[in-house]
Amino acid sequence: SLPDLDLTSGHLMNPAAPRYILSLSCPDRVGVVAAVSGLLASMNGWIVEANHHADPTTGTFFMRQEVLAESVPFGVDELGDHFLPIVDEFDMTLNIRDTSEPEPVAVFVSKHVHCLVDLLYRWQTGELSFDLKVVVSNHPDLRSLIEWYGVPFIHVPVDRENKTPAFEQMTSICDEHGVRTIVLARYMQILPPTMCRDYPNRVLNIHHSFLPSFVGAKPYHQAFDRGVKLVGATCHYVTEELDAGPIIEQDVVRVDHADAAADMVRLGKDVERTVLMRGLRYHLEDRVLVQGNKTVVFK
Amino acid sequence: SLPDLDLTSGHLMNPAAPRYILSLSCPDRVGVVAAVSGLLASMNGWIVEANHHADPTTGTFFMRQEVLAESVPFGVDELGDHFLPIVDEFDMTLNIRDTSEPEPVAVFVSKHVHCLVDLLYRWQTGELSFDLKVVVSNHPDLRSLIEWYGVPFIHVPVDRENKTPAFEQMTSICDEHGVRTIVLARYMQILPPTMCRDYPNRVLNIHHSFLPSFVGAKPYHQAFDRGVKLVGATCHYVTEELDAGPIIEQDVVRVDHADAAADMVRLGKDVERTVLMRGLRYHLEDRVLVQGNKTVVFK
Amino acid sequence: SLPDLDLTSGHLMNPAAPRYILSLSCPDRVGVVAAVSGLLASMNGWIVEANHHADPTTGTFFMRQEVLAESVPFGVDELGDHFLPIVDEFDMTLNIRDTSEPEPVAVFVSKHVHCLVDLLYRWQTGELSFDLKVVVSNHPDLRSLIEWYGVPFIHVPVDRENKTPAFEQMTSICDEHGVRTIVLARYMQILPPTMCRDYPNRVLNIHHSFLPSFVGAKPYHQAFDRGVKLVGATCHYVTEELDAGPIIEQDVVRVDHADAAADMVRLGKDVERTVLMRGLRYHLEDRVLVQGNKTVVFK
Amino acid sequence: SLPDLDLTSGHLMNPAAPRYILSLSCPDRVGVVAAVSGLLASMNGWIVEANHHADPTTGTFFMRQEVLAESVPFGVDELGDHFLPIVDEFDMTLNIRDTSEPEPVAVFVSKHVHCLVDLLYRWQTGELSFDLKVVVSNHPDLRSLIEWYGVPFIHVPVDRENKTPAFEQMTSICDEHGVRTIVLARYMQILPPTMCRDYPNRVLNIHHSFLPSFVGAKPYHQAFDRGVKLVGATCHYVTEELDAGPIIEQDVVRVDHADAAADMVRLGKDVERTVLMRGLRYHLEDRVLVQGNKTVVFK
Repeated sequence: SLPDLDLTSGHLMNPAAPRYILSLSCPDRVGVVAAVSGLLASMNGWIVEANHHADPTTGTFFMRQEVLAESVPFGVDELGDHFLPIVDEFDMTLNIRDTSEPEPVAVFVSKHVHCLVDLLYRWQTGELSFDLKVVVSNHPDLRSLIEWYGVPFIHVPVDRENKTPAFEQMTSICDEHGVRTIVLARYMQILPPTMCRDYPNRVLNIHHSFLPSFVGAKPYHQAFDRGVKLVGATCHYVTEELDAGPIIEQDVVRVDHADAAADMVRLGKDVERTVLMRGLRYHLEDRVLVQGNKTVVFK
Repeated sequence: SLPDLDLTSGHLMNPAAPRYILSLSCPDRVGVVAAVSGLLASMNGWIVEANHHADPTTGTFFMRQEVLAESVPFGVDELGDHFLPIVDEFDMTLNIRDTSEPEPVAVFVSKHVHCLVDLLYRWQTGELSFDLKVVVSNHPDLRSLIEWYGVPFIHVPVDRENKTPAFEQMTSICDEHGVRTIVLARYMQILPPTMCRDYPNRVLNIHHSFLPSFVGAKPYHQAFDRGVKLVGATCHYVTEELDAGPIIEQDVVRVDHADAAADMVRLGKDVERTVLMRGLRYHLEDRVLVQGNKTVVFK
Repeated sequence: SLPDLDLTSGHLMNPAAPRYILSLSCPDRVGVVAAVSGLLASMNGWIVEANHHADPTTGTFFMRQEVLAESVPFGVDELGDHFLPIVDEFDMTLNIRDTSEPEPVAVFVSKHVHCLVDLLYRWQTGELSFDLKVVVSNHPDLRSLIEWYGVPFIHVPVDRENKTPAFEQMTSICDEHGVRTIVLARYMQILPPTMCRDYPNRVLNIHHSFLPSFVGAKPYHQAFDRGVKLVGATCHYVTEELDAGPIIEQDVVRVDHADAAADMVRLGKDVERTVLMRGLRYHLEDRVLVQGNKTVVFK
Repeated sequence: SLPDLDLTSGHLMNPAAPRYILSLSCPDRVGVVAAVSGLLASMNGWIVEANHHADPTTGTFFMRQEVLAESVPFGVDELGDHFLPIVDEFDMTLNIRDTSEPEPVAVFVSKHVHCLVDLLYRWQTGELSFDLKVVVSNHPDLRSLIEWYGVPFIHVPVDRENKTPAFEQMTSICDEHGVRTIVLARYMQILPPTMCRDYPNRVLNIHHSFLPSFVGAKPYHQAFDRGVKLVGATCHYVTEELDAGPIIEQDVVRVDHADAAADMVRLGKDVERTVLMRGLRYHLEDRVLVQGNKTVVFK
């Protein structure tokens, strides 16, 4: 029988109560919302958040539904089984996540600490909810900080002449830890194409410019040389083409003639970590749906 | 029979194609979305935009649906009739608007031109879609500009000692023009309680501060005296209590010690008109649902 | 003898009181400020605003001083004569402007009204202080609006095959009206190199992207295709290289997946006019000093 | 003899080179800038940054000069002696700081870690330059983090019924450590009047609202109840009147109907720490001059 829902007690709206997040896309047509919401209603599913997007350019429909897990008499797999007929009928790509199973994440860093220190703080306080499996770096500098937080740290030096073994080791580390999402928190190495393909739309990078301006190295110095009045940062999924993957989030900060390139670096750091944390939040909450080289982000 | 929908021709996604906008609220429970979307699907309704909000504080559910008018074999009244059973079942407040019938609007102004000039430009270019019936002012100064735009202008002086006849005349003017929404584009008079009650959540005001700071007169001078580092503006529905109605939109702009009160006025003007135009757009597109003294704004 | 300065009366701080604006640059060294401020003090010059910038990259010093005209017993030419020894000694480029002589300006437009309508409003209300000599357009559409404001309008069609006569006519118009600054308020033609050279750092353009992203045609559509999360606008001086001149001001606005290219155009228009108006204000108040392809903007 | 200045070597522009920061205020009159810059030039003082502000309301002049220490043949005390005649002549309040002597700072915290973690990171990386003498808290929770950074931590419980001994202990701690500036990084206790008076304009607080809105306790919940569309934070100097001291810096972040009070708290935290860090930077670099209950902030 169905669970006894009691809204007045307010417990249903507990933000910490586990949820099933359904995110889907399909060719747009009449009846998609009715089919999905009808099925959810038939199993007593209590929707706490819902977002839709119909893309007129491609005729694609996107939807995200957050359903209280306790309102539904099924686990996540059985829930998925119930959706199979609809998935077929509407030619749907459907993903269901159980928020009580946090995403296993690896973080790759270099020597820059500003994004990492923010990530660790948000992870430790639970502001961002994920399972931080391991931090990997090509430098040993940040070991002590990471280990203070109780997170495994692995130093994988990258040999300029032969990067293959290093990235094979990193792939193994991710495999061993069951990692599903990789965060490049200012990791200054370019991932090999195989790794990009192994984690499609599951590697997040923070690029320190407002893309597509200033692709590649030293973007703040490029910005300084051009004399722009705002500098920015871009969180995007990593693809094989450098700094060209689907953009998840961007932001900027004002600079002026009195700001040297070093000031732009300093001011930009705050934007970088803010943008990376926002992008990561969207990703972890299954708010990002990718279509081609663009994203739908349900905020 | 149902209309022949042909997405590939792209005409369905014509942003100018008339739509029915359904906005509703009801006690939150399982099945609301299923009922509404199921009914819409049964009549072939093509949803182009949908937004939901479940308010955990009050247990109220809010929804806005934009449906292509040509996809449904009914006019707006008949459409409403089909929803009556659902309205009853879910104890729903439902409003349906046909976007092919633009909202009849009156604008009240004083001598300040900055909001008005922006409103006229957006109305003339069609960026904001409404039926500008009349502009009323207690000063004659702006007649020529308004009439250049082909809009009727009526000068209604307000006598400090006896405001009643003036506001009775303004009410008559609104009645004669079938006005449904009144925009106070820096109208410097306080509306009488009767008028507030006659147009519940249909009178928009722009207050030149970031409410609840600096209620009442000369807010920029209050801001200057307090030494704040940002000044703002607030678009809200007018209620009987001064500057205390439901807030629709707000924004701010940075100021510093070098800005005299006159500079704050100048900088603030740009925020005022931007905030008023955004608030008005949300209102005209039925994106604002009021609950108590707060708003849900589906952007 | 020197004028009788009476600060307590407050008249000195009247923002409308005429001022001499000195803007200068020279190789940086000890004593520049002392020399300039010492000379000003010797002639009783009352400084109401002062800004400095020492550029460490090039070793150049920039300064802007606003002096109350009535505090100095000289006209602008005589004032300049007194500075000649200092100009020589410090190898200085010095410009002095008398704010009681407003800048003669021509505006070039096409069919887009959004920047123009804002410019006309700010000019008419005196918010921006300049002498609007003439508006030139390659289309006749905006004649009526411009003439309502009492500004001469000249229609100069531009022949795609032979643009030379059109731009010669426009140069003549500017000459006849004594124009010193040209504002391209979304004028959709590319100025010929001769015209760029005739008005060095005196032609302001508004480009509808956050440069250097999306140079050239249809930047909003380029932005839409790339899937950026912010769109922007750039006010810059026009040089012979398209969209590559010194940047004066930039700003951005947030967009998301729900915004079609047409929405980006709509949202971007507000940024364009805001950025153009800010850039024009800085230019008119002699706050912009150009060094190479970059600007110092004393705000 | 004077030092041998060699700009071309670029060492003068080294941002890490020690500087003397002169900040002053005096009644506004002709000749202040000339006197100060003339004296600096006579001693070969190389000015790397200069800011002025003439306040028309009170007739007060404010100035800040950053001079390369190595360009001047004096220590900070001797430099001050040379300024005595000018200080007398112009009735000046003058402060000179040597940036090679970092400010001794104490931080007071409660249980909230978000501001502290940011402060520690910026202190450790040298992004903010000060001498972090001690962190004091009325809770033991953050000891481990603080000690990992190598900073002394002292737990001073505050007894609700008798706060006097606690604050006497804290005053002693500050005295022993030679503390000149106290940062309340979300310290949830109200300082006693004596402590406010002992550190005039030297205690920085971060209040979690856009003051003057929402003074006192639980400002995010007040903001939620009022239905505002932006929430903010304010960094101010602490005075005896709660949340009413001179404002140094403020900022806001957008919220909407979907944000519960808990979301506002989460979003606001990022604004709090950003605003506190900016305010602290301005304070540490002697950029904040207080006049009455307002600040001049030279950025």
